[in-house]
Amino acid sequence: MTRGKFISFEGGEGSGKSTQVGRLVERLQPVLGDRAVVRTREPGGSKGAEVIRNLVVATDAEPWSAMTETLLMYASRSDHLERTIRPALEAGDWVVCDRFADSSRAYQGAGGGVAQSFIEQIDAGVVGDDQPDLTLVFDLPVEVGLERAFGRGLFETRFESKGLEFHQRLREGFLRIVEAHPERCVLIDAVGSLDEVEARVWRAVQDRLL
Amino acid sequence: MTRGKFISFEGGEGSGKSTQVGRLVERLQPVLGDRAVVRTREPGGSKGAEVIRNLVVATDAEPWSAMTETLLMYASRSDHLERTIRPALEAGDWVVCDRFADSSRAYQGAGGGVAQSFIEQIDAGVVGDDQPDLTLVFDLPVEVGLERAFGRGLFETRFESKGLEFHQRLREGFLRIVEAHPERCVLIDAVGSLDEVEARVWRAVQDRLL
Repeated sequence: MTRGKFISFEGGEGSGKSTQVGRLVERLQPVLGDRAVVRTREPGGSKGAEVIRNLVVATDAEPWSAMTETLLMYASRSDHLERTIRPALEAGDWVVCDRFADSSRAYQGAGGGVAQSFIEQIDAGVVGDDQPDLTLVFDLPVEVGLERAFGRGLFETRFESKGLEFHQRLREGFLRIVEAHPERCVLIDAVGSLDEVEARVWRAVQDRLL
Repeated sequence: MTRGKFISFEGGEGSGKSTQVGRLVERLQPVLGDRAVVRTREPGGSKGAEVIRNLVVATDAEPWSAMTETLLMYASRSDHLERTIRPALEAGDWVVCDRFADSSRAYQGAGGGVAQSFIEQIDAGVVGDDQPDLTLVFDLPVEVGLERAFGRGLFETRFESKGLEFHQRLREGFLRIVEAHPERCVLIDAVGSLDEVEARVWRAVQDRLL
């Protein structure tokens, strides 16, 4: 069995990523035959990584600095890769992950001010050659995304309350990632109906991986 | 008020570090006048860092890999530096820390097999210029240290049960750190009575910092 494929979904708040992860998994499964499709997410995705996730999103202590957050995210990612992602890919299964390392580049890097060179050094050590085969970056105007997120009552992460300027840096950060990694990234216009966005995702997966 | 001094204590299990941290703090305070002596430890030393410490030393999940552990240790260290160490040094206080970054180099690097170059990259980003002014590396034969640790019933960390070969690598790792950083490190012979070792520590502190 050849190695499976690794797809990550990225983007800001309210972009509809998570819904589309579910739709892609359903659509992929019948096409892949014997190969399983493993749906996972970050931060989290393994027992240990979920414990670290709880530290990051719901600490009672003072908020972590962007630097500390970067290290916690990569600690979580390290466990997730070791326990969930690499074993699945090596077994020939496909992995569809809701957020991955580009979220560190965007949130802690572009948004939080941690040096991109520092993030790349950690990424090389932790992720190494296990970069996603395809990254779908969901893009939409910041105001639309935040309205969607607020409309759903999703105030649970402190990222959503960081203000428009932070989210603007985040969006620009994601756009720069797509520009820098065209071999791996596809920009998905997240404005439109669920079915329209699903069609864009499916086209990208077909073009790049099937 | 000039910047305070930063002293770290390092070494394997059962070396008597923690007792000597207490003795040094008592001996330093009257000498320093208005400057406080802040006693702290790693992993831990700030509210957030202690939360991460609990994750590392007492997880119910599968044990962390040495790579994940490195990232958790530096996440904890990042918070500790931001909330405890840097503010104290900037206020002119002295900081005496029971374990610091050399423990990552020795335990996760020399002991656990994480590449030293990777640890140095993270260290440069997290610790940067805030390296200790003096590091006292406690050294004693592995068998003596483990016998002391076991004698005290200190089985609480899983490091102590990793076997003689791990602890031998650890000791050699610490010795290499002293060789590589003679400007900052002093090797302390930890064999002898508490008073004898205290005298060695005090001589090093006087020579280097007073």
